[in-house]
Amino acid sequence: MLLFKESEYKERLQKTKKRMEEAGIDVLMATHPANMNYLTGYDGWSFYVHQCVLVSLDQEEPVWIGRGMDGNAAKVTTYLSPENIKSYADEYVHSPVGKHPVDYFVDVIKEKGWADKTFGLEMDQFYFTHRTYQIMEEKLPGASFKDVNMLVAKVRSVKSAQEIAFMKKAGKIAEKVMQVGIDELEVGKRECDVAAEISRAQIKGTEEFGGDYPAIVPLMPAGDGIDAPHLTWSDRRYEEDEAVILELSGCYNRYHAPMARTVYLGEPSQAYKDIAKAVVEGLNETLEFVKPGVTCEAVEEKWRNALAASKLVDASRLGYAFGLNYPPDWGEQVASMRPGDKTVLKENMTFHLIPIIWKDDAGFELSTAIRITEDGCEKFYDFPEKLFVK
Amino acid sequence: MLLFKESEYKERLQKTKKRMEEAGIDVLMATHPANMNYLTGYDGWSFYVHQCVLVSLDQEEPVWIGRGMDGNAAKVTTYLSPENIKSYADEYVHSPVGKHPVDYFVDVIKEKGWADKTFGLEMDQFYFTHRTYQIMEEKLPGASFKDVNMLVAKVRSVKSAQEIAFMKKAGKIAEKVMQVGIDELEVGKRECDVAAEISRAQIKGTEEFGGDYPAIVPLMPAGDGIDAPHLTWSDRRYEEDEAVILELSGCYNRYHAPMARTVYLGEPSQAYKDIAKAVVEGLNETLEFVKPGVTCEAVEEKWRNALAASKLVDASRLGYAFGLNYPPDWGEQVASMRPGDKTVLKENMTFHLIPIIWKDDAGFELSTAIRITEDGCEKFYDFPEKLFVK
Repeated sequence: MLLFKESEYKERLQKTKKRMEEAGIDVLMATHPANMNYLTGYDGWSFYVHQCVLVSLDQEEPVWIGRGMDGNAAKVTTYLSPENIKSYADEYVHSPVGKHPVDYFVDVIKEKGWADKTFGLEMDQFYFTHRTYQIMEEKLPGASFKDVNMLVAKVRSVKSAQEIAFMKKAGKIAEKVMQVGIDELEVGKRECDVAAEISRAQIKGTEEFGGDYPAIVPLMPAGDGIDAPHLTWSDRRYEEDEAVILELSGCYNRYHAPMARTVYLGEPSQAYKDIAKAVVEGLNETLEFVKPGVTCEAVEEKWRNALAASKLVDASRLGYAFGLNYPPDWGEQVASMRPGDKTVLKENMTFHLIPIIWKDDAGFELSTAIRITEDGCEKFYDFPEKLFVK
Repeated sequence: MLLFKESEYKERLQKTKKRMEEAGIDVLMATHPANMNYLTGYDGWSFYVHQCVLVSLDQEEPVWIGRGMDGNAAKVTTYLSPENIKSYADEYVHSPVGKHPVDYFVDVIKEKGWADKTFGLEMDQFYFTHRTYQIMEEKLPGASFKDVNMLVAKVRSVKSAQEIAFMKKAGKIAEKVMQVGIDELEVGKRECDVAAEISRAQIKGTEEFGGDYPAIVPLMPAGDGIDAPHLTWSDRRYEEDEAVILELSGCYNRYHAPMARTVYLGEPSQAYKDIAKAVVEGLNETLEFVKPGVTCEAVEEKWRNALAASKLVDASRLGYAFGLNYPPDWGEQVASMRPGDKTVLKENMTFHLIPIIWKDDAGFELSTAIRITEDGCEKFYDFPEKLFVK
């Protein structure tokens, strides 16, 4: 079930170890599910319990640590030798008074002879709790700890050819998904019924390849709630003369292709149509500027200048890096197109450009997901860029 | 959009404040999305950024803190006064070099005059990172910190009448969802196509009320992967003579009703049918024993003894508390039916009893979700308890 060649995992590992050396750490403890997947292939909805991947400079293979039953998933989804798959008994799971999974992590670390090493930890990732840190610090008194929150994310941010191929498949799914969303929307229908068809389309994928669950559920703010973009659906019925934003992703083997479009149920005002036109034109003008060597902040500035005449946008976050991920987010956190972000674009970095426009009471979104190419950029999907009116 | 009466939120808050006094803390910082929802009503898929609810003994209302655009969702989903909804600018979001959302939390804490208080923190919850703790400790040198990982979860574990009503609605959805899963399963069909119909049914809900997204995607281990229960679907096609476990939940307004059933595609062996019979009988014998006053560990022991003749089970985790939740888990972590857990059952606690049986290469699951009643227990759904054969 290995999704990439073993050589690709080894290349990822090599790049990771190089960054570990630069950061002055001996052992990396990856707790972010996307980093665990990236380094070993590990997949499974098991990230509600503590688990990690350890990468040590003195051992070729990483070590996967998780719950007993998930060790079975590690055997089929990773390339690791059985001796590098370590799993703990169920008495460690959510036990308020008993053993903690990180106690077991420490046992493995001691067994490997790493108790006195310098560890790199993902100190601001949601799957790394303060308790995890406390136990490591208390039970490994000879060890030292450094924050490497973005180390693996930085390696992940430049994709391989096969990762790009996966994201293009996710783009194909995204095209189908958005079409379903637009087709289903109508006055009088319940939000949940539209969300249901969208989710079905996301998971079915295409006839050639199936879909995976996106890291974020369908987001579809509408009407009065359009300024609360992370509100999820209810069983409210759509009404005449409201705008609906659809922010949806295709997902293939945990790789995403997110897309946002706006649908107006009724006859939009000329001012609203003008917003759509300005955004589409400004976004495409910005894309002409995007290429390797340009900084993230310069892209945002270009966008802001392109929209200057419309007075629609202030300095803000235009887009963010994305790719392989798990709930709660498909973003990579590693780079954003916004003032102050001096990340230099490289070939095969991937970004979701999603300007969010609020003017008076009207909301509008239209996004594009791109790959940085050798001398420019290309979109992951081909879908009409306009305000949809129904 | 408030889902419960304001008086119910106030009652929850009162119980929480009582526990805060007992724990010797002045200010509780709830970062778990379910706890934030429970205390204020706040809902939204915004938990990929740092956010929290602060409850102080010296202020009647809690304070919600989150991202600017999510403040709009807080206005419509919570009962809080505008002055207790505090939101940070987007420059705080995923900014590797700039401001951190917890810097903003600290600003609010100082403004409220709480800088020297004793804080209760959810130190082992996934939405509370080590960095969060570091910033709190560094920027609030006069404050002290205690771990109250399970404080709100303990209050949550005993449900109100309206919460139970929500969970019964989730149970109605679960019945429909499981029927769709069983109907769709057949040899030659792709796993993703079955998962798609299941997800659609989960979100549609019923004609009377819509469904919400469950905290876990459809889990459907099958065939050779049946011993890896958290592997998600692929586009593999089902084969003759394989067992498929469906672990699915209905969800209504973030309240769950999880259910597991097993379907055999082909003609199961007599030994496999015997496993199913033993589990169904043992589970119902165990339920007769369940009532207020009994401990969690006694329920597991009863179950183990009921299955003694079959030699199918060792001492293990039979079930866990569940209810209101967000990804990655619908479990409450607060109590498990397993050896050593001395939690005493009370009326309106709710548990998912899900024995997982592996014997030789065969896997079997059949679960039930129950509410503890005044003198026993009742199931949240009515669905045939048997091995399904297709």
